[in-house]
Amino acid sequence: MSGNSIGQNFVVTTFGESHGKALGCIIDGCPPGLELSEADMQHDLDRRRPGTSRYTTARREADEVQILSGVFEGKTTGTSIGLVIQNTDQRSQDYSNIKDQFRPGHADYTYQQKYGLRDYRGGGRSSARETAMRVAAGAVAKKYLKQVHGIEVNAYLSQLGPITAQNVDLAQVEQNAFFFPDVSQLEALDEYMRDLRKSGDSIGAKVSVVATNVPVGLGEPVFDRLDADIAHALMGINAVKGVEIGDGFEVVNQKGSEHRDLMSPEGFASNHAGGILGGISSGQPIVAHIAMKPTSSISVPGESMTVQGERSEVVTKGRHDPCVGIRAVPIAEAMLAIVLMDHMLRHRAQNSDVHSQTPILGMR
Amino acid sequence: MSGNSIGQNFVVTTFGESHGKALGCIIDGCPPGLELSEADMQHDLDRRRPGTSRYTTARREADEVQILSGVFEGKTTGTSIGLVIQNTDQRSQDYSNIKDQFRPGHADYTYQQKYGLRDYRGGGRSSARETAMRVAAGAVAKKYLKQVHGIEVNAYLSQLGPITAQNVDLAQVEQNAFFFPDVSQLEALDEYMRDLRKSGDSIGAKVSVVATNVPVGLGEPVFDRLDADIAHALMGINAVKGVEIGDGFEVVNQKGSEHRDLMSPEGFASNHAGGILGGISSGQPIVAHIAMKPTSSISVPGESMTVQGERSEVVTKGRHDPCVGIRAVPIAEAMLAIVLMDHMLRHRAQNSDVHSQTPILGMR
Amino acid sequence: MSGNSIGQNFVVTTFGESHGKALGCIIDGCPPGLELSEADMQHDLDRRRPGTSRYTTARREADEVQILSGVFEGKTTGTSIGLVIQNTDQRSQDYSNIKDQFRPGHADYTYQQKYGLRDYRGGGRSSARETAMRVAAGAVAKKYLKQVHGIEVNAYLSQLGPITAQNVDLAQVEQNAFFFPDVSQLEALDEYMRDLRKSGDSIGAKVSVVATNVPVGLGEPVFDRLDADIAHALMGINAVKGVEIGDGFEVVNQKGSEHRDLMSPEGFASNHAGGILGGISSGQPIVAHIAMKPTSSISVPGESMTVQGERSEVVTKGRHDPCVGIRAVPIAEAMLAIVLMDHMLRHRAQNSDVHSQTPILGMR
Amino acid sequence: MSGNSIGQNFVVTTFGESHGKALGCIIDGCPPGLELSEADMQHDLDRRRPGTSRYTTARREADEVQILSGVFEGKTTGTSIGLVIQNTDQRSQDYSNIKDQFRPGHADYTYQQKYGLRDYRGGGRSSARETAMRVAAGAVAKKYLKQVHGIEVNAYLSQLGPITAQNVDLAQVEQNAFFFPDVSQLEALDEYMRDLRKSGDSIGAKVSVVATNVPVGLGEPVFDRLDADIAHALMGINAVKGVEIGDGFEVVNQKGSEHRDLMSPEGFASNHAGGILGGISSGQPIVAHIAMKPTSSISVPGESMTVQGERSEVVTKGRHDPCVGIRAVPIAEAMLAIVLMDHMLRHRAQNSDVHSQTPILGMR
Repeated sequence: MSGNSIGQNFVVTTFGESHGKALGCIIDGCPPGLELSEADMQHDLDRRRPGTSRYTTARREADEVQILSGVFEGKTTGTSIGLVIQNTDQRSQDYSNIKDQFRPGHADYTYQQKYGLRDYRGGGRSSARETAMRVAAGAVAKKYLKQVHGIEVNAYLSQLGPITAQNVDLAQVEQNAFFFPDVSQLEALDEYMRDLRKSGDSIGAKVSVVATNVPVGLGEPVFDRLDADIAHALMGINAVKGVEIGDGFEVVNQKGSEHRDLMSPEGFASNHAGGILGGISSGQPIVAHIAMKPTSSISVPGESMTVQGERSEVVTKGRHDPCVGIRAVPIAEAMLAIVLMDHMLRHRAQNSDVHSQTPILGMR
Repeated sequence: MSGNSIGQNFVVTTFGESHGKALGCIIDGCPPGLELSEADMQHDLDRRRPGTSRYTTARREADEVQILSGVFEGKTTGTSIGLVIQNTDQRSQDYSNIKDQFRPGHADYTYQQKYGLRDYRGGGRSSARETAMRVAAGAVAKKYLKQVHGIEVNAYLSQLGPITAQNVDLAQVEQNAFFFPDVSQLEALDEYMRDLRKSGDSIGAKVSVVATNVPVGLGEPVFDRLDADIAHALMGINAVKGVEIGDGFEVVNQKGSEHRDLMSPEGFASNHAGGILGGISSGQPIVAHIAMKPTSSISVPGESMTVQGERSEVVTKGRHDPCVGIRAVPIAEAMLAIVLMDHMLRHRAQNSDVHSQTPILGMR
Repeated sequence: MSGNSIGQNFVVTTFGESHGKALGCIIDGCPPGLELSEADMQHDLDRRRPGTSRYTTARREADEVQILSGVFEGKTTGTSIGLVIQNTDQRSQDYSNIKDQFRPGHADYTYQQKYGLRDYRGGGRSSARETAMRVAAGAVAKKYLKQVHGIEVNAYLSQLGPITAQNVDLAQVEQNAFFFPDVSQLEALDEYMRDLRKSGDSIGAKVSVVATNVPVGLGEPVFDRLDADIAHALMGINAVKGVEIGDGFEVVNQKGSEHRDLMSPEGFASNHAGGILGGISSGQPIVAHIAMKPTSSISVPGESMTVQGERSEVVTKGRHDPCVGIRAVPIAEAMLAIVLMDHMLRHRAQNSDVHSQTPILGMR
Repeated sequence: MSGNSIGQNFVVTTFGESHGKALGCIIDGCPPGLELSEADMQHDLDRRRPGTSRYTTARREADEVQILSGVFEGKTTGTSIGLVIQNTDQRSQDYSNIKDQFRPGHADYTYQQKYGLRDYRGGGRSSARETAMRVAAGAVAKKYLKQVHGIEVNAYLSQLGPITAQNVDLAQVEQNAFFFPDVSQLEALDEYMRDLRKSGDSIGAKVSVVATNVPVGLGEPVFDRLDADIAHALMGINAVKGVEIGDGFEVVNQKGSEHRDLMSPEGFASNHAGGILGGISSGQPIVAHIAMKPTSSISVPGESMTVQGERSEVVTKGRHDPCVGIRAVPIAEAMLAIVLMDHMLRHRAQNSDVHSQTPILGMR
């Protein structure tokens, strides 16, 4: 495979550039009989959609997804599902600024070097616009996991620059434009973002994602452990520079007696492991965190060079998110859901007939 | 694939349990014509080998690797390379302690639940003993990368519990049993470990791994980005709970003007990105960090339960590493080398004929 | 992967049903820098297109392909190529005939049983209409192979029922509606088909496909031999029941002294092997043959059963090809081209740097 | 993957050369809980083993397989199964004859050209000796399919040169050294082979393989159809030049009214399709045939060339099978079993929860 697919039994393959005709994807391996319509995907697409608040890019895209195949009379048929989203707001703008030079911190230089040419319009394939299709595919996985297995996947913004969520109230997440779970800091966030916009700069963020009601047993040691595949999927989101499972980097200074989650017939006493032991889900909530870098699309001038190798200064104009972490919330959910869906099918392939799966622990 | 393989064009598949007859692996896709002997792998195997210092497990294994196929008259033939290491020190011990109960923080519970049965001897397949074969396969990748492309991969212990390397002197790494790059803290480490052993507890650690002289262009967007595949490979090492590329979680509180690496015809001015932009190597050093949890194999008693679901208390006896981060150093190198090798071949498949690969930047 | 993808380094994934909104595919792994436009695919699509002669189905489809991504300023960018063809002639017809019963010899029964439901309109996903996207993807492979490596792939109808091509003149193939290489039998074919249509029956056929100028060295033993992958790709075409390489089933009664192709510095003296030895291309033309069954969509009544398990009699009305072998000619070319393209990239991945590839034989 | 693996959910990867130290394989994806010992594989290995009759090669190999991992207390654990067979009879012979020249009809030339070097001892990796591991892995698949699903896989020699089985009595197959199902022609076979040996020549053969009690629903359209994957697996056996499903090449001259298998509530009236419709198993027996070329290892002199490109004459000495079709019987069974096993797991992954799988037809 050449990089545009993820998964083994539930496989998502995407195409599309920021300013091309359309974005699309194929979902291969979705079980038959699942009720599915465009509306099931549109909710998450709208959450990711640009232009919905003053904290994100002003680009206007309806992001209306269309199902082209794989669904008949309202149900999935087990055959491949083709999805497409037309690009509508591709302003015919002047690209001379980015055509001939490399924006520092961007993929311009590496795409040019790898492929010898690049679609420079809006970042081409390297644009986060591509993640719209991941969100659509993730919505299918989320619906299946919820309906058939009762699994739920929820993400939220846990930190934006210096502002950290102190209380995590998931009920708040969808009530504000930041997907922030701590209502007491919304004003501080608003103020921070206003100042940031004025300065023309951008800021990093941390996103947390949690899956609940995951059964014990998902994950295929030794290389395709559940945590390894989650790391692959989350690190593959644009701008992500770090992935943690459970306590993550805090474990560096933990003792074994402190870190290990004690067990009893009533269940686990804690969840430092983030729901994964030996690469296999333990039945506890799966917890992951990602670090999102500040976007390099800023209006602060920066030293760079032209495609011809000459010194230049870059100022990125146009419509950009000052904090890409905000819109990454539905993307992180989608990627975790896709991984869980794939591992659910993989687990089922190998383990459905020989032994019972009744978990020993009472608690999950 | 069911989880025991990694890579697409350079594929490593392993087998073997901690106390089984042997460990083994198949390397599929190694280019022909590479000079290869057991000695090329033995050096790294010896670095990972147990029983070499008082800071690691006392288990004695020669870890002598044997090449069974794929090499003829001293050179790889392009066919699959079979490797095997016999297990020699499998003390016929009393396993009743771990047979009937789940050690907290271990994979005992998840393996039992996933598979309905488990090889409990020494942790079976979930034991880090399995990583010996990764180190052997990684040594093949390292030799090829060095010889054909001049790429070097080096890891070191950057933190052990509260003790952090302040100065990173790679020349020191192979001079001490900790693979620690800061000679000024070796005494503190020694003292810390002595106290730790006495307490019967264990400690977490951080390992850093760097690849230099990597050409620009490795990585296949959008899902098989180089950073995503590195995260997959590193998170797949036993006990790893977090992976960072470049500045990692520090980016959460960085501004765009601070994070982006400025460029000029002389090269990049910094390397916050850790050598990867848009999922493609930039020609700068690849830098990654991993968080290793403290092993749960400690003699501090802990609450747990039996396979029958009854309450119990566990004390893990036997020979265990108080800090698994130390021996993870050669493993991290191996995994990064395997990923780079695989991406080198993938890149070559698609990009060898259409355009020149001459990097524009003078500096790497 | 769940079945809708083919290839490893050059990967084609398709979607779409006979009477759905659209057909589509994603080509992943096409090298950058190839000049590509819709016109490059349209020629082969027109060759496969229904409704072009009185020997094929009367369904009218323009089969106009649209490139949605992966091409910029007329050249491939190395990113995934999204293609789509709108279905236009989906007559709103009465499907009650096939909705409730299984047409004998069709996939109706197996789809219903496998998935528990099926898109019965025009055969849904099991319709050969799906092969339009293979032809589009194959055209990309053909263009690349021709332009970069000078490889040509040509197929023809070698037998239609009792009528066998005695002389193979490739120059004739595109001059008649049968893709038949023996002009002396065109009248007999025309007469045979007229009689067949009158009888409401269908007939089998044999299609041959040849690739010339293939370099020595393509194919990855032991399971992904070139011949094994060709067999996979050709047997995967609708209605194919047999695949031969070179002399095929004639070898059963051949002696070794008769079959082996003698060699000399001038080249091979014969090509019984069909251009493949030990699963690797020899530099001679690759020759394959496929057996196409007669379509089961005939108006001769046949015993069958309903979805409810009751006895019934089926008469398939509608627009169908009396010999599906005719339109299979461009499909066979496409599939062979896709396999060769994939193996060219795989070969390049592993073998580009260690040894020279200069063939020893003067002749190909 | 680089060619030495087959399957997706049940994955078999092999290594080993004809005269290397050992042959081996890894089975990845075998469900846990299956009782397994070396004896389960040894029976089929003995059937394939050289030196068992005067009709096959005189090379003596015990072919004793050893399980190195994946089995604990007599049962599979769900982890990867490592198998190894030591090579014992690697006579230190004079290879100068084949080292410096290419035997016509052999893989010598293509391996040399592809890889730039080759292990010429006994054909190296291109030797059919490699298939011993396929037979071992196939035996695991066969045991699982039989025990859990009641599926049986049986092959036989259906034709040897001019001698065709007229009556197929499966009970006879294991009673004679030819695996021939027609006892009335055993004498003719014996005589034919005696004459053939005298002449120093070899002969082609046809092998048939049948799987019974296969449930409806196996196969993943459109590219990984069951017939396509069977074709891939069977064409990947050394010396195979053709694969047929059901009526195979006879369909070329069949009419639709003749070929289609009529259905009724009592079942199918015939099995021209060979148990596969639309790439999915129909519940009828799976029937496949393969054409085996006559081996090129004959003592009849043949024109060839040296590695240096000079004219030469080759006489292949040594111990060779005059008809490789005989020992291909257990290999064909193994490959079909591996494909069915893989598709059983793939089918289960996608289809286990949404609808019932009760077949509508009473008959299979």
